[in-house]
Amino acid sequence: MTEQIAVIGLGLIGGSLSRRLALAHDVICYDADPLTRELAESAGLTVTDDPMAAIQQASIAFVAVPLLVLSTVVGQVSSMLPGGGVATDVGSVKSPLYAAVRADGLQARFVGGHPMAGTEQSGFAASDPGLYDGAAWVLCLQEDTDLTKWLRVAAVLTGIGARVVPATAAEHDAAVARVSHLPHLLAAALASTVADAGPLALTLAAGSFRDGTRVAATAPELPTSMCRDNVDAVRAALAETVDRLRSAHAEAGSLIAAGHTARLAWGNRHGVPAELATADERLPDQLLALGRRGGWISQVTPQTLSVVVPKPV
Amino acid sequence: MTEQIAVIGLGLIGGSLSRRLALAHDVICYDADPLTRELAESAGLTVTDDPMAAIQQASIAFVAVPLLVLSTVVGQVSSMLPGGGVATDVGSVKSPLYAAVRADGLQARFVGGHPMAGTEQSGFAASDPGLYDGAAWVLCLQEDTDLTKWLRVAAVLTGIGARVVPATAAEHDAAVARVSHLPHLLAAALASTVADAGPLALTLAAGSFRDGTRVAATAPELPTSMCRDNVDAVRAALAETVDRLRSAHAEAGSLIAAGHTARLAWGNRHGVPAELATADERLPDQLLALGRRGGWISQVTPQTLSVVVPKPV
Repeated sequence: MTEQIAVIGLGLIGGSLSRRLALAHDVICYDADPLTRELAESAGLTVTDDPMAAIQQASIAFVAVPLLVLSTVVGQVSSMLPGGGVATDVGSVKSPLYAAVRADGLQARFVGGHPMAGTEQSGFAASDPGLYDGAAWVLCLQEDTDLTKWLRVAAVLTGIGARVVPATAAEHDAAVARVSHLPHLLAAALASTVADAGPLALTLAAGSFRDGTRVAATAPELPTSMCRDNVDAVRAALAETVDRLRSAHAEAGSLIAAGHTARLAWGNRHGVPAELATADERLPDQLLALGRRGGWISQVTPQTLSVVVPKPV
Repeated sequence: MTEQIAVIGLGLIGGSLSRRLALAHDVICYDADPLTRELAESAGLTVTDDPMAAIQQASIAFVAVPLLVLSTVVGQVSSMLPGGGVATDVGSVKSPLYAAVRADGLQARFVGGHPMAGTEQSGFAASDPGLYDGAAWVLCLQEDTDLTKWLRVAAVLTGIGARVVPATAAEHDAAVARVSHLPHLLAAALASTVADAGPLALTLAAGSFRDGTRVAATAPELPTSMCRDNVDAVRAALAETVDRLRSAHAEAGSLIAAGHTARLAWGNRHGVPAELATADERLPDQLLALGRRGGWISQVTPQTLSVVVPKPV
């Protein structure tokens, strides 16, 4: 089904999304920066300087603005949508955003999202329409979520090749604290420890340093916002990790062996295909159970959801 | 100058080295595993099943065996070399090895080495003659090192494209604890923390997790040996890193900003060429000062050493 889509914010994430969505849907996009709008227009996108008009005609609006202004813009966009329209976002932390959306009474028009894709670069110039091919894309499913709207957003995302993962906002935030925010902190601690060790260490730094610090090349505003907005889950993840590192102080072999097993198991996961019926009244629970088992939706049709469930490792 | 070289041990490091050295020198190589010897022979190398004969004719012997047997094999090889011959190695930790070599009275025949190159793979099948192009290769310079032999090994290594970095064993061990052993522990802690978080987290793990845990795919014996043999320096590096992570518990922005600055500075270092005279009696001190400034040797001739000194960042 072709949707009328508005994309607000044309950085790496919104720019990549617009370029891919435009291959299958009617997409009008906007960025607050005139130069970015020009770049997007040169790339063949339909760009407006009147975002309100675009949103008022949209069936789905993607909000891809910085975390600092995310809840404000999501609130504005959600309230401007036509009846039946749904706003979604791409922000890295979900619970505070849902709190803001509920405070405005807009939860029936909103589905929180988060694509697990990106690079250490930013801006429209770094955008890539293939960025979401095979990427996990969390779509939050809360008790007050409009399931019909949730399924429409899921259909658009599976249509661009993403693996749609259902989770509550709290489950999402706890998981990304570990898989995404924690790696930023470890990379920063490693880069700082090596820099403080002096020029000899910097010269000897090679592959394991380069890979272990790659995300530290990200502009620091984004990881700083993520860690601040997700502070409780990040603290818990940090505390667990510090405990593991302190155990290695006495004896490193057990930690290294456990990490090796975990890394290989992650790379070797296999999925089993299955189907869910969209008409089943237990669908919300089935979807959340799917997400908790590490599963995802690969295709959405009016009657069925094709899903993949990883075998336990 | 063409050297008569023996290489003992044909895993990833020794295999890559043999294949590159054979382009410029007479190389005879050996591995304790008959299958590996066959593989190396098929790759065009001259392989012996009598390592003693090869060592007795060698002007330089490279020992590239696992850390567990390294000091034993270095002792055997050093004592078998002809007069004027020099043994060197590729092990990740240098101080315990020097202690063993000195206990055997073999320090005038030995120069400890360590190439900062490798992948998460191992074995001759993964070897690559281009592995050392541009790689930093530490050559230890101790008070009891034979400088003439040190320069001969340095000449062979710059000849295969390595950047030869002079350092004492203690300086080397402190630096690699931070740039190499610490990344293994951080990768293991990250992989374990994410695995314990369950299937949803494993599904959401993407680029920052993949890069941050890449070295955890290494067979665990090697990093476990490195951390055990370098335990004091590794503990110091761990303690510094844990302190940094604990500071992020209160506020993450400062750590993230410092890590970002450090990572970019590492990637943006520029070097200035200079020369040292081999006849200068202050050469050992000049070389160690070069290493401490993050510099390296790029070429060795009988009269001069071409060196590169990074600008301070």
